Amino acid sequence: MTSQRSVVVLAYSGGLDTSCILQWLIEEGYDVIAYMANIGQEEDFEAAQKKAQKIGAKKVVIADLRREFVTDFIWPAVGSGLIYESRYLLGTSLARPCIAKGLVAIARSENAQFISHGATGKGNDQVRLELACYALFPGIKMLAPWRLPKFTKRFQGRQDLLKYAVEHGIPVPVTPKAPWSMDANIMHISYESGILEDPAEIAPSNLYQMTLDPAQAPEQPCYLQIFFKKGVPTQVVQIDTGNTVEDPLELYQLLNNLAGKHGVGRIDIVENRFIGLKSRGVYETPAGTVLHSAHLDLEAFCLDREVLRIKSYLRDRLADYVYNGFWFSPECNYVRKCLQNAQDNVTGWVKVKLFKGSVFSIARSSPQSVYNQDLVSMDKHGDFQPEDATGFIRTHAIRLQEFYRKNTNDD
Amino acid sequence: MTSQRSVVVLAYSGGLDTSCILQWLIEEGYDVIAYMANIGQEEDFEAAQKKAQKIGAKKVVIADLRREFVTDFIWPAVGSGLIYESRYLLGTSLARPCIAKGLVAIARSENAQFISHGATGKGNDQVRLELACYALFPGIKMLAPWRLPKFTKRFQGRQDLLKYAVEHGIPVPVTPKAPWSMDANIMHISYESGILEDPAEIAPSNLYQMTLDPAQAPEQPCYLQIFFKKGVPTQVVQIDTGNTVEDPLELYQLLNNLAGKHGVGRIDIVENRFIGLKSRGVYETPAGTVLHSAHLDLEAFCLDREVLRIKSYLRDRLADYVYNGFWFSPECNYVRKCLQNAQDNVTGWVKVKLFKGSVFSIARSSPQSVYNQDLVSMDKHGDFQPEDATGFIRTHAIRLQEFYRKNTNDD
Amino acid sequence: MTSQRSVVVLAYSGGLDTSCILQWLIEEGYDVIAYMANIGQEEDFEAAQKKAQKIGAKKVVIADLRREFVTDFIWPAVGSGLIYESRYLLGTSLARPCIAKGLVAIARSENAQFISHGATGKGNDQVRLELACYALFPGIKMLAPWRLPKFTKRFQGRQDLLKYAVEHGIPVPVTPKAPWSMDANIMHISYESGILEDPAEIAPSNLYQMTLDPAQAPEQPCYLQIFFKKGVPTQVVQIDTGNTVEDPLELYQLLNNLAGKHGVGRIDIVENRFIGLKSRGVYETPAGTVLHSAHLDLEAFCLDREVLRIKSYLRDRLADYVYNGFWFSPECNYVRKCLQNAQDNVTGWVKVKLFKGSVFSIARSSPQSVYNQDLVSMDKHGDFQPEDATGFIRTHAIRLQEFYRKNTNDD
Amino acid sequence: MTSQRSVVVLAYSGGLDTSCILQWLIEEGYDVIAYMANIGQEEDFEAAQKKAQKIGAKKVVIADLRREFVTDFIWPAVGSGLIYESRYLLGTSLARPCIAKGLVAIARSENAQFISHGATGKGNDQVRLELACYALFPGIKMLAPWRLPKFTKRFQGRQDLLKYAVEHGIPVPVTPKAPWSMDANIMHISYESGILEDPAEIAPSNLYQMTLDPAQAPEQPCYLQIFFKKGVPTQVVQIDTGNTVEDPLELYQLLNNLAGKHGVGRIDIVENRFIGLKSRGVYETPAGTVLHSAHLDLEAFCLDREVLRIKSYLRDRLADYVYNGFWFSPECNYVRKCLQNAQDNVTGWVKVKLFKGSVFSIARSSPQSVYNQDLVSMDKHGDFQPEDATGFIRTHAIRLQEFYRKNTNDD
Repeated sequence: MTSQRSVVVLAYSGGLDTSCILQWLIEEGYDVIAYMANIGQEEDFEAAQKKAQKIGAKKVVIADLRREFVTDFIWPAVGSGLIYESRYLLGTSLARPCIAKGLVAIARSENAQFISHGATGKGNDQVRLELACYALFPGIKMLAPWRLPKFTKRFQGRQDLLKYAVEHGIPVPVTPKAPWSMDANIMHISYESGILEDPAEIAPSNLYQMTLDPAQAPEQPCYLQIFFKKGVPTQVVQIDTGNTVEDPLELYQLLNNLAGKHGVGRIDIVENRFIGLKSRGVYETPAGTVLHSAHLDLEAFCLDREVLRIKSYLRDRLADYVYNGFWFSPECNYVRKCLQNAQDNVTGWVKVKLFKGSVFSIARSSPQSVYNQDLVSMDKHGDFQPEDATGFIRTHAIRLQEFYRKNTNDD
Repeated sequence: MTSQRSVVVLAYSGGLDTSCILQWLIEEGYDVIAYMANIGQEEDFEAAQKKAQKIGAKKVVIADLRREFVTDFIWPAVGSGLIYESRYLLGTSLARPCIAKGLVAIARSENAQFISHGATGKGNDQVRLELACYALFPGIKMLAPWRLPKFTKRFQGRQDLLKYAVEHGIPVPVTPKAPWSMDANIMHISYESGILEDPAEIAPSNLYQMTLDPAQAPEQPCYLQIFFKKGVPTQVVQIDTGNTVEDPLELYQLLNNLAGKHGVGRIDIVENRFIGLKSRGVYETPAGTVLHSAHLDLEAFCLDREVLRIKSYLRDRLADYVYNGFWFSPECNYVRKCLQNAQDNVTGWVKVKLFKGSVFSIARSSPQSVYNQDLVSMDKHGDFQPEDATGFIRTHAIRLQEFYRKNTNDD
Repeated sequence: MTSQRSVVVLAYSGGLDTSCILQWLIEEGYDVIAYMANIGQEEDFEAAQKKAQKIGAKKVVIADLRREFVTDFIWPAVGSGLIYESRYLLGTSLARPCIAKGLVAIARSENAQFISHGATGKGNDQVRLELACYALFPGIKMLAPWRLPKFTKRFQGRQDLLKYAVEHGIPVPVTPKAPWSMDANIMHISYESGILEDPAEIAPSNLYQMTLDPAQAPEQPCYLQIFFKKGVPTQVVQIDTGNTVEDPLELYQLLNNLAGKHGVGRIDIVENRFIGLKSRGVYETPAGTVLHSAHLDLEAFCLDREVLRIKSYLRDRLADYVYNGFWFSPECNYVRKCLQNAQDNVTGWVKVKLFKGSVFSIARSSPQSVYNQDLVSMDKHGDFQPEDATGFIRTHAIRLQEFYRKNTNDD
Repeated sequence: MTSQRSVVVLAYSGGLDTSCILQWLIEEGYDVIAYMANIGQEEDFEAAQKKAQKIGAKKVVIADLRREFVTDFIWPAVGSGLIYESRYLLGTSLARPCIAKGLVAIARSENAQFISHGATGKGNDQVRLELACYALFPGIKMLAPWRLPKFTKRFQGRQDLLKYAVEHGIPVPVTPKAPWSMDANIMHISYESGILEDPAEIAPSNLYQMTLDPAQAPEQPCYLQIFFKKGVPTQVVQIDTGNTVEDPLELYQLLNNLAGKHGVGRIDIVENRFIGLKSRGVYETPAGTVLHSAHLDLEAFCLDREVLRIKSYLRDRLADYVYNGFWFSPECNYVRKCLQNAQDNVTGWVKVKLFKGSVFSIARSSPQSVYNQDLVSMDKHGDFQPEDATGFIRTHAIRLQEFYRKNTNDD
């Protein structure tokens, strides 16, 4: 290090790992700014702030990104129907670029040369955080202790961290660590590693924190009417009570509460990491699951068939980009814009029923849909001439007839 | 017509429509062979046979296609993960080519010049039936009364059919028609038209016949272990009882019973028909939903990430082909083969839990998976060097850095 | 027909077919407005106008659509890199919606109930013309005599048309018909049918009208510098002479002349028609070929790699839509917009060399490209650390190693 | 290093770089086996062998891989229609896995722990070579001196290499190095870097070694008839002379000679490297260009339209995989197999004309094509009813009419 100490912004969680990293970075000669993003996780931010200050952070920044997370990251995901490998709603993947944006803002305003974090060397999060930082701040340098031999040799396991913490007066967790790791934000909680690493073992039932066990959920279903404008949720009405929310953050929190109470949003999957490994993850995404389901329903109702095909293709591409950490990238910018254009007509409402772990779309309406009840009705001809279908079918058949004639020498 | 009467094979259901069509075809001078395919629908085939004979069918053929339907149509769909517009499992679409194959076999053996059916002129089924017939028997002629002006002018509504039936001594239904139409087979029941034509109206709860209302489903979940070999279900074990089935037809029926009892497999959607209309359909697909979910889980576990990407693309294409009626076509042949190749490693088991309308995949195992617990473990390094991730990320970042530098004149 | 005569707008070419159709429509009781679109084909419009008037057209409209054809149809095609089945630049497919738009405008302003045309019943053009008319004027009725049994029974071949023309005093062609048909506009000439129907026979060398035989082309190459802005050609400079054009129509005509003189733009292919047939076509597209090649070069230079991938996918979809006649459709609107967005950075110039039937892109420059000479240079490190490539490769290798270990039981 | 010397197999070219690397590896304590793959490049293998022996290689292996390169790497590429970013025929990308396979075979038989090569740290070749080696030999360790700081600090430029060579008695090139680098094999020569790094500068005309300048090419075109069986070239006939070759290697060499003589196969492009950079390359691929063109023609003639669509999608994916170095990977294995299946009907011949830098496909024939001259003929009805097209068009129009009615409130 030069005589003038380099400044590093550390993504700080208040936990054991990043507390030790904070201490270690100071030892290594850095001035450290601890950055805590509130993206809706359960956390005593004040206590964490004091902890960081006590360890020696030059500054502690706590940023409430919850609203931005909902409107700038979750809303585009909902409007795109984003889902990874057909099941995972990308709760962690969407949070990382949101946090990275915050880290970069501080790094720039504080003239930091480095950004650091506690993500491990086998996971996706390191990739997501760092790619986003590099994209938004091409000149930044990333410091990932869990990939630095100097650090990993010193801290070979949790015991080394605990010992180091005790040595440096860093408060250590009083409750034993759960035999898995978890990551929480307003959109979801993910659980992985530890006992979850064996995909043949059923996850323990006491794992879940955002959703009730469906078996404990109310016997009465909950009926909601969810309004969308251009693909984005704008209003939720609890049909029984008439209770209505429109504010994005409140809307999202209400849905989390209701869906969580009805046990909606749990999945247990094996997924493919960008880094080339398969990993098992358990996720609970209550509001996200409801919104995904409702949006899917409205979109199929509003969009032209062929536009829906293109949109689905682009959705799958975007899901991979976002999962892999490319939220801030030319391709994400481009595909997000294309997907947004596709949502111009996705306006209307969907009624959904939450019950014992499931969400069902049961009715929908849209001023924009080309759905034409007269045209489809079996009881009316509408503008449609049934004879036309004959020519339609016979013309489509030409290719098939030729193919089978050729391949079977048949007539 | 020539002095020698033309022979037509009629897809006969025993219902009012095809009974009138049978009568009408005879009046028009055809010799009619009534063909009834048993694809698992609830039907009194014997009574229907007598009815057809009474009306004047020259011959009545009843073919039990249930086993063939399961192994040759449903199994490839399960192995391909086939799903239309993200939700519909294609129960009707898969049945049509199965029936068409049967119709063509009879048409050939009986030297028929025509195949006829009672499908309407606005729907998908006419397309599916006829394309399959044209493909398998390029020289066949299709007779679709509901598209013939001579027929449609005479029968402008259900009342005309009833009157005609009474006039010709054809037994008419004694119970009033439900205010919707339905189509059933071993895979599913679909409901559409009538009061369902308004997508904003919730479907009546007394509609469903294959599945219990989730609210009425047992309080105890049902746990199953489902085995697959190369993507195809080979065994189902009821974990609580140890009851095991392997025969495809029995396996499918058992799953239908269990999933139906637990209320699994209902959807209510608006879909895009091939013919250019949107229509609202309610479907219940109990076994199909369980198998789709379990297969999805096992496949993600077994397949290489990039192979999974290609496979998903092909799956979406195949779903469209099948929905649109191109089961027998060069593209379906080709894509099915490609998808089958992708299933070579999809062997193993999945444990699922059925409960109150939902199916959850909760554990899985495979001798073929590349899942490597040591490699992914946070507690072991395996063969993986965390430092490598640095180069991985930094190299991926180059493109992003250049892009943002260019577009923001920033460094 | 009702006592008040229906009005039909006929796409009139001045040739034998549409002259007979004009006469026949009048006989059938229609008031006919003959519509001639000048889209750059060689035609004596004045003589054709007189001919139509003499036959009895109630009105003759000649519309110069050349400029609109270039800017509203060809430019988007160039900017999208549109090419059908890897080879055909869609010269006819692009012209049809342009003409249809003109037909619809007249039909609306003249309160016509019908639009008619002389396209045959096996080709693509009927589809393209009619779909565009239906889309732009949903209430219009199309009259396609070559698909009407009344017409086709009367006119079973060219002899019947000639005889009918003579009977009605319609001037008939004095030169014998070429043993193929052709269709010309400013973008291309297509040749098909007749002796071209045997794909194993080489097309006659005297067929071509827009391009010189490469063997007759000048010994000196022609060097051009072509400027694009957001994917659209804005300027062409003849490098040797300094001659510069910017007006779209002049630019296109200049390129046609130069490329035609150098024998550039001929292809001889078998293509797949929408209607399910394969057909053999010979095309010459001089300017279009040069622009396609230059744009392809600039685009690869300017676009991000991943954006290029998405763009290529969308391009292939759009090519099919346009070929099939869906220029005016929700999917075309949508995909064109997406593709346009992708062109935001495609600004700069390309130098091309025309020589003896070929066009070569030989140099290019762009203020927008992310191409970074320092970064790529073998002589400089730039911002790039070669060591990073190690981690990049080793991380990508994990998946492969696992796969081969699994599949070969090898280490 | 341990007392027992580690064995490294070095991909040796005989040039300055790999000669210095050989020397350096020996200095570093390795036993080095120099491996020279003959993949058709112009090279004095005997002289190179002596050079390696003189430097101190423990063993020198020269492997003639030309036939294997043609049949196992080029043929699948031709059959797949492989092309990268619409223009590059992947001559280098295909060679690397071929060489890697050879390296791995020696590494295994010689119990080597390392494979080394002279590829630079910014290019694609390091990725391709190493991924292939890791895939085929998961336990191998790769030694890439140009990415090792110890090596790159010592050899900062060509002067350092020359000096080192002189010091160690390694013969140095007597002719000055061309101001670009090149890489040659039987399929192509690529040129890049040096003066080519400025994409706005036209490449010098004296660069090319496999193809004549089109201006110097013969005035008489060359006509060839190329036969394919299941997508693979099986015979070439020189139409003028009747000269016929069938042996794959001879066939490929003959095409190289003829196409080279007629100036066919040059491109000058900017491409996207896997590693995130754009780079400018000039390529000449004489035989490959002819075969690509002929195969494209035959394939469009033989394949069903929809199969062609799927095939094109898979082709684009495979091109990326191969370019990026994933020849030996689950996805390449899978997609190659799918593409091979698509070639089952691609059997027949194409006549091509080579002239002054261009290749034109001018006629084709196939026993497998579904092309049906009667059906497409304008002079015959075949099995086709023109009236059917009416229903085909009108049914396709429904969706468009609804869309435009909705969006324009128009009728």
